[in-house]
Amino acid sequence: MKIAVLGTGEVGRRIATRLVEVGHEVSLGSRTADNAAATQWAEETGDGASHGTFRDAAEGAAVVFNCTKGEHTMAVLEAAGAASLDGKVLIDVANPLDFSNGFPPSLTVSNTDSLAERIQRAYPNTKVVKALNTMSNPVMVNPRMLAGTHHTFLSGDHEDAKSTVRGLLESFGWASEEIVDLGGLATARGTEAFLLLWVRLYGAVGTGEFNIGIVKKAG
Amino acid sequence: MKIAVLGTGEVGRRIATRLVEVGHEVSLGSRTADNAAATQWAEETGDGASHGTFRDAAEGAAVVFNCTKGEHTMAVLEAAGAASLDGKVLIDVANPLDFSNGFPPSLTVSNTDSLAERIQRAYPNTKVVKALNTMSNPVMVNPRMLAGTHHTFLSGDHEDAKSTVRGLLESFGWASEEIVDLGGLATARGTEAFLLLWVRLYGAVGTGEFNIGIVKKAG
Repeated sequence: MKIAVLGTGEVGRRIATRLVEVGHEVSLGSRTADNAAATQWAEETGDGASHGTFRDAAEGAAVVFNCTKGEHTMAVLEAAGAASLDGKVLIDVANPLDFSNGFPPSLTVSNTDSLAERIQRAYPNTKVVKALNTMSNPVMVNPRMLAGTHHTFLSGDHEDAKSTVRGLLESFGWASEEIVDLGGLATARGTEAFLLLWVRLYGAVGTGEFNIGIVKKAG
Repeated sequence: MKIAVLGTGEVGRRIATRLVEVGHEVSLGSRTADNAAATQWAEETGDGASHGTFRDAAEGAAVVFNCTKGEHTMAVLEAAGAASLDGKVLIDVANPLDFSNGFPPSLTVSNTDSLAERIQRAYPNTKVVKALNTMSNPVMVNPRMLAGTHHTFLSGDHEDAKSTVRGLLESFGWASEEIVDLGGLATARGTEAFLLLWVRLYGAVGTGEFNIGIVKKAG
């Protein structure tokens, strides 16, 4: 599958690399066509890896990962252009973190709205699925690094798009029963708000290499 | 220990019963001295159980559990009175849920503040500890009902008060390593915001009888 990854930070590069590993053609999108991090990533990754502007990457892709920082997301999608996103699955990994008062961050949108819903409202012909935003990027792409069962969440209004994302997550190593469909895209209010707990857990656990698992009754 | 439980709903009665079971003298506080639920609870529970007004209950106690609905918390504490709460440990189990638009609820305070911090600001001589607010009440008092390791969180600015709460949680059956101290009371912003995810997990899991566990790397 041709997949665009928007954002050349650690999250974007980690996801892009993993997508190439599992057999996809990946274009890493950035503000400029000659972005140093994207150029280096494509050279080092080799077959299946390319790079370009946000628009270049999104235009040729069937699926688009939003791995930008939440504060830049709307501007990046505008740069990619509605036409490039039309009819496509957009996997929103971003969180609307506000570090303007330092660590821990607060959220710029929360409680009664979410970044994912904002994207969906701005791009009604795109199929937005919120996913993977509740953990650090090493865990996203290699869930088996952790010792035990843990969970990842899907939020979205388009069932076919959620199926596509589920397939990609399984290719990363997520067990089917570890992928929890929370329902419509408004449930992203829950996973984005979880970041307010995640950043404190990060402090208490002492590493970002953890995740949460749902523990049920015996039997 | 003499403990007050403010709130005669399911959470309050469940915690009050468990506290009596593990050997404490518990007074269940309500708006009026002759509250039917509190009277019935004290009669059925027997030795160690009493009831009274919010003020009656708090006055005689060393530790106070706030098990009221978040929307009533500040009024209930005002009815209990600052003098009755002075110098005491207040365990805040409440969440500032807003059901005015139906289910799932939003929060009336979140992101850059929390109900726990509001209580602490209003009662600076009380030692507020946020605890147990991230799960349903059967799990709070009987953590071993779930199949595996899962976690509960402490937030508070007073170390001695957190030690007291830790001891109570261990008496409920929480393992020491399952009780995660997140730090100061502002970390309650994280556990209260988790409710926005919890209410959606409740829908996806199909029962409230679950909790989250932190899953780390092997080794």
